[in-house]
Amino acid sequence: MRQRMEGAALKEAVAGLADWKLEKDELVRTVIFPDFPAAIAFVNRAAELAEEANHHPDIDIRFNKIRILLTTHSAGGITQMDLDMAARLDTELQ
Amino acid sequence: MRQRMEGAALKEAVAGLADWKLEKDELVRTVIFPDFPAAIAFVNRAAELAEEANHHPDIDIRFNKIRILLTTHSAGGITQMDLDMAARLDTELQ
Repeated sequence: MRQRMEGAALKEAVAGLADWKLEKDELVRTVIFPDFPAAIAFVNRAAELAEEANHHPDIDIRFNKIRILLTTHSAGGITQMDLDMAARLDTELQ
Repeated sequence: MRQRMEGAALKEAVAGLADWKLEKDELVRTVIFPDFPAAIAFVNRAAELAEEANHHPDIDIRFNKIRILLTTHSAGGITQMDLDMAARLDTELQ
């Protein structure tokens, strides 16, 4: 779970997450909401999921545009925990 | 309210906001909370104030560390609206 993924294994895993991009050692997704309250409501839902998983994405709020950044600092890169959180957030955003 | 402040007037105004720094065309304050839920609770309070004032700061969430960035995009810099919002957020953080 907490082992850093690299190379082909990482690329394959990220290929399964259509809305996420690999940027250096982070998985990044940007989502645009209809308005600011909708964006904040999502931030709260993401915060709940983060607490449940004890794995907390970085989140940038730019009015109705939310940028989510996932990495596992203790592993120095992307781990299965990040892939799982990305999938959970995707479900939330469906 | 919506006129960009510059030079001595801006420096004087920012000098009155002890916890904020001037970074390019933005007023920036970083706050560290005891934990993630406390940080998210503050983000929600800031979001309410933003909606009330119809002036929305950029907010970066890094676990328990929140970075607030204020500028008035329509004015191309810092206006009285930003100074007012900074003061409101300071009151909330007291």
